[in-house]
Amino acid sequence: MSETLVLHEYAASGNCYKVRLTAALVGRALERREYDIVKGETRTPQFLSEVNANGRIPVLQVGDRLIPESNAACHYIADGSQLVPSDAFDHADMLRWMFWEQYNHEPNVATLRFWKDWIGHANLSEAQKVQLPAKRQAGEAALELMDEHLDGRDWFVAGRLTLADICLFAYTHVAHEAGFEMDRYPHVGAWLERVKGQPNYVPMSA
Amino acid sequence: MSETLVLHEYAASGNCYKVRLTAALVGRALERREYDIVKGETRTPQFLSEVNANGRIPVLQVGDRLIPESNAACHYIADGSQLVPSDAFDHADMLRWMFWEQYNHEPNVATLRFWKDWIGHANLSEAQKVQLPAKRQAGEAALELMDEHLDGRDWFVAGRLTLADICLFAYTHVAHEAGFEMDRYPHVGAWLERVKGQPNYVPMSA
Repeated sequence: MSETLVLHEYAASGNCYKVRLTAALVGRALERREYDIVKGETRTPQFLSEVNANGRIPVLQVGDRLIPESNAACHYIADGSQLVPSDAFDHADMLRWMFWEQYNHEPNVATLRFWKDWIGHANLSEAQKVQLPAKRQAGEAALELMDEHLDGRDWFVAGRLTLADICLFAYTHVAHEAGFEMDRYPHVGAWLERVKGQPNYVPMSA
Repeated sequence: MSETLVLHEYAASGNCYKVRLTAALVGRALERREYDIVKGETRTPQFLSEVNANGRIPVLQVGDRLIPESNAACHYIADGSQLVPSDAFDHADMLRWMFWEQYNHEPNVATLRFWKDWIGHANLSEAQKVQLPAKRQAGEAALELMDEHLDGRDWFVAGRLTLADICLFAYTHVAHEAGFEMDRYPHVGAWLERVKGQPNYVPMSA
């Protein structure tokens, strides 16, 4: 892997931060190109035809090839490193948490953060407003499930830091910005500190 | 991989079918245990404590270890086979489509099918009813994106059948049951036939 890596991103997105944190932890350089998602810069005809037909960031560019989807981009960067277990069960177990993150965590925790701090509750559509209680409840259930799993464990999978931790960390460490009461999840709190203590850790604001 | 594999499932779920189809294509035997999700059999205290704290199927049991999340279960079964590319980019590109399936396809296409044929539109909550137009539109956008990608390609990734195809096939081949007009996606239609023509293919009803 010697190609130039370019991250097409919106820096405040947890999904984009995952990719930067993965690259930092394994010591890969990333060029960064910023798009303002609030201004629709990922929905322009040029972005849709040249970067991602799905209109979303992050997209990792590897030479002239593209990988959309944050967790897939992390997998490319970390493949062959200690962050990706070589054992078939551990590898699948890591992916299990990454799929769970995109299905049960991100659509609730990340969406509530975006709606609160970027869109503003007063500007939500009726279809969005009616989903608030269910998303709050599902977000709390996701954090509770993480807390139970981390009771007696330092890391999600294989007894060591893997991509499962990185991908779950991204939106969990800013879940309080979405109004989640993080004091209720003490094992999650201790795990967040363990991730922040890793060599080469970079904060979201870097 | 010589452990007994047990699939905890609900047979009519596309997410469970993915796992069966993967096992069939690579020639792995699966024991099957059925739970009626409509009757709440995956939300009992026993299921939550012994099978999946997330209350969902499928869960793949490998000896006495468990892998929830359909796409992670497929990855475990197919690891080391032709269905999982060994090249780092192709592997990540395959995962890209699998993450996309769980984020952009399944919550729309699969949910509309479940709401229509299992719950019934008359029985939906107001919070569910108000989401119908957005889920219809997002499901159509997902099928359209697949159709554009398959224009000029036989398979999603690496020029051959991979788990990306299997995982996308599961709910796409029953999308008409959710009311999607599949004639609008001719490249998807041709690809569905290619998957059905694979050696050892098994239908959802098997």
